[in-house]
Amino acid sequence: MFESAEIGHRVAKKEYKARAPELRKALLDAQYRLLEKARSPVVILVNGVDGAGKGETVNLLNEWMDPRHIRTEAFGQSTDDERDRPEMWRFWQVLPAKGRIGILFGSWYTDPILCHVMGHDRKARFAQRLERIRHFERMLVDEGAVLVKFWFHLSHAAAKARLKALERDPKNAWRVTPGDWERYKHYGEFVDVCEKALRKTSSAEAPWQVIEGVDAGYRSLTAATMLLDALRQAEAERPKAKAKPLSVPPPAIDGRTLLASFDYARKLDTKHYEKQLESLQSRLANLSRDPRMARRALVVVFEGMDAAGKGSTIRRVTQALDARHYRVIPVAAPSDEERAQPYLWRFWRHVPRHGHATLFDRSWYGRVLVERVEKFCSDADWLRGYDEINAFEEQLAEAGAIVVKFWMAVSPDEQLRRFEERKATPHKNFKITEEDWRNRKRWPLYERAVGDMIDRTSTDVAPWFVVASDDKLFSRIEVLRHLCERIESTLGSDKGKGRK
Amino acid sequence: MFESAEIGHRVAKKEYKARAPELRKALLDAQYRLLEKARSPVVILVNGVDGAGKGETVNLLNEWMDPRHIRTEAFGQSTDDERDRPEMWRFWQVLPAKGRIGILFGSWYTDPILCHVMGHDRKARFAQRLERIRHFERMLVDEGAVLVKFWFHLSHAAAKARLKALERDPKNAWRVTPGDWERYKHYGEFVDVCEKALRKTSSAEAPWQVIEGVDAGYRSLTAATMLLDALRQAEAERPKAKAKPLSVPPPAIDGRTLLASFDYARKLDTKHYEKQLESLQSRLANLSRDPRMARRALVVVFEGMDAAGKGSTIRRVTQALDARHYRVIPVAAPSDEERAQPYLWRFWRHVPRHGHATLFDRSWYGRVLVERVEKFCSDADWLRGYDEINAFEEQLAEAGAIVVKFWMAVSPDEQLRRFEERKATPHKNFKITEEDWRNRKRWPLYERAVGDMIDRTSTDVAPWFVVASDDKLFSRIEVLRHLCERIESTLGSDKGKGRK
Repeated sequence: MFESAEIGHRVAKKEYKARAPELRKALLDAQYRLLEKARSPVVILVNGVDGAGKGETVNLLNEWMDPRHIRTEAFGQSTDDERDRPEMWRFWQVLPAKGRIGILFGSWYTDPILCHVMGHDRKARFAQRLERIRHFERMLVDEGAVLVKFWFHLSHAAAKARLKALERDPKNAWRVTPGDWERYKHYGEFVDVCEKALRKTSSAEAPWQVIEGVDAGYRSLTAATMLLDALRQAEAERPKAKAKPLSVPPPAIDGRTLLASFDYARKLDTKHYEKQLESLQSRLANLSRDPRMARRALVVVFEGMDAAGKGSTIRRVTQALDARHYRVIPVAAPSDEERAQPYLWRFWRHVPRHGHATLFDRSWYGRVLVERVEKFCSDADWLRGYDEINAFEEQLAEAGAIVVKFWMAVSPDEQLRRFEERKATPHKNFKITEEDWRNRKRWPLYERAVGDMIDRTSTDVAPWFVVASDDKLFSRIEVLRHLCERIESTLGSDKGKGRK
Repeated sequence: MFESAEIGHRVAKKEYKARAPELRKALLDAQYRLLEKARSPVVILVNGVDGAGKGETVNLLNEWMDPRHIRTEAFGQSTDDERDRPEMWRFWQVLPAKGRIGILFGSWYTDPILCHVMGHDRKARFAQRLERIRHFERMLVDEGAVLVKFWFHLSHAAAKARLKALERDPKNAWRVTPGDWERYKHYGEFVDVCEKALRKTSSAEAPWQVIEGVDAGYRSLTAATMLLDALRQAEAERPKAKAKPLSVPPPAIDGRTLLASFDYARKLDTKHYEKQLESLQSRLANLSRDPRMARRALVVVFEGMDAAGKGSTIRRVTQALDARHYRVIPVAAPSDEERAQPYLWRFWRHVPRHGHATLFDRSWYGRVLVERVEKFCSDADWLRGYDEINAFEEQLAEAGAIVVKFWMAVSPDEQLRRFEERKATPHKNFKITEEDWRNRKRWPLYERAVGDMIDRTSTDVAPWFVVASDDKLFSRIEVLRHLCERIESTLGSDKGKGRK
């Protein structure tokens, strides 16, 4: 991977001076066109060997382009806020909006590479983290981002020569620390691991660009030219013909669906309801205050047809929780800041810290429900949604979150009854709109979408619970019970593990 | 202040049961109307004596209303992100948007009160912090927020009785820690300080509501009724007649303005420019890397008429900085999330951490420039803007930021020349729009606004530098020089202070 970046590439000063101004102007123009169209964000990753000119290149790009529309982020030690969440959270927080450029100094490669070099992560874990990155980058590109991955390289000899040269220069000698020489000693292992990482993650949609870092002129012209190419590619309309054939899940040949075959009719009488409600709420109250929860978070998703009783069920759950530690996120139309980001961004921003709970009243499943049925996005978009959602929830779970998802299953007849009732109740009038009646007509389409969703996203780490909801009392109790059990089984499995 | 809250207020269970349902329904209805109109945010502060039912009330309000549209925040130890910024930053981050309710458990009163009780803050500092809070709350109300300030109180005897009762109850005995008894010992001092705080900050627009906390029924009904009143008041259109007479600064009677009397014509030749640019940029580069900057932040504001050269000057500044440590924020139309917040919110979100710099290309001064001239806001709004801006910058400075503001002063003739030049240059075409020509016609109005702005907001901690900008070379050098000098003088004054 690095062979061509150890041959001493060099550009003569004269040539550099001749070519730089034009390149600079072209880059600036491309940046303004990007901004004007506001169709794609550009994400530039800057990684590589110490001393290979990473910082210099970042500053150069900021100098050559308009720094007002570039956001450069360097990732050092994680903050308290970051440590309590999935590792990708900090990167989601700084993704550039459409039309803008984000330069990530360090990026999501740094930690997996270092952990493997230092021996904290074994081979399998390293491979898993790279696979996750591949997946994340594919998502970025699918969402329209231009992803440019720079790797600045120095040969073993060049790395040594650079440290020596710095030491000799009185103005720069202070820059060389014992740590630098220590890292230099491990050059071989480090480069081996990096090579593996690059090979595994150099995909067709987001290939690595390896640049030899010895000569500033060569390095700068090469990086700038590569970036310009990427910006120009982003401008060109993507050829539709390139789209791969899609396989939309077909309806079952006997016409049956999961929801249509579901038993909606289960009931509970008021007396049993009240007794169980009290006991389950106090069980949940205790669980949520369990000391082990300080190292865990809780993410609960409520989905269901209109009038399925999501709101009133959520209230039965929050009654058992301390308001200081939970948030309810009602999901409606995205804000303009959210629309300028990849689909999952608006949910990532609400990922709870350890010790906290977030309840979603509708959620990221909108992608494979309403957006699929109403054709708000292309088939390709919602089809890749399943994978993206599973990866998201897997990361939540890995970072300590207990993820529980409820489909509140109401029958068409009961929905109609509730609609009519709402229409007749003055202060609930506003809850029923034209849209609700329109959605109702698409019932069979939603039914298919729900079936596909549950088949594809009910996982070990984040199972779906389909809850019969024609009787509100029954469904509330079911939700509380599943929630308690899920927390209990997760906390139970913590015992032997010695989580910090 | 607390006399009426020590008389043993009580509501019989029967009465509570009779009144609660109606109150609950009324609150929920009011909440939905608030949400639908989306005109005001509601901020509820919950403070008071330990054990007086603060947590219980917060949970009750979440139970009685729709928790999906309430965001409850409890403020514990500050995170490292928070410690590196002004103390109000954490509160700005969680202000509710219009139509929503934010419950702040703890709020901006906790720290000033505790610091004074513990003896960390002397009287004068305590008074200053309270004055700042008053100012902040007045701003919230002026921006349309409904502010409800609850203080839950227990008499000395009741506080003791409560701790004893908890200890006796086997289920709750664990709740009583030695710390609780320790705090109880200081009840007298604590209540004295609180009383002072409440008196100083109980303003007409945001009065404190003191509620005796002994009896749950009394406490709950009282808090809910007060909140309902506040929500209803928010619904009523504010009577315009109540507006105080405003004193818009009159033009000087001789018709002269600061800008019109300014000498725009200063020049620098290319040779001197290049020499000075190099020396100033390296001076700034060294300053920005000074170890003392790790405990400081840098906030630089660029304002000026269109085509005054802000963008190209910013680039000369950023060339000297490390891209990993600065951000440039170009200020254009606010996003919808920003529009749903108080005016300064969109700038607070970009306040830099220690060790970082933020450069604003246009800024919060839009309030007293374009918004004043174009009448985007009322006279009352921009008039209070001066004070709000000064308070904002004072907080930045107090938290360690070096705040430097540049007015790039270009003459009408030179602006015209640049407009024509842009029109004639194909790739700069897009930079000149109808709006630029329209703004140009309002030159005298802008001139007056700029004069008023500089008079009212050039302060010790955040001075304005008016820079002659008809010659771009001269103005860039001036900006760099002022910036360096300002940083040097601030760092110089740090020496003896032993900042951590």
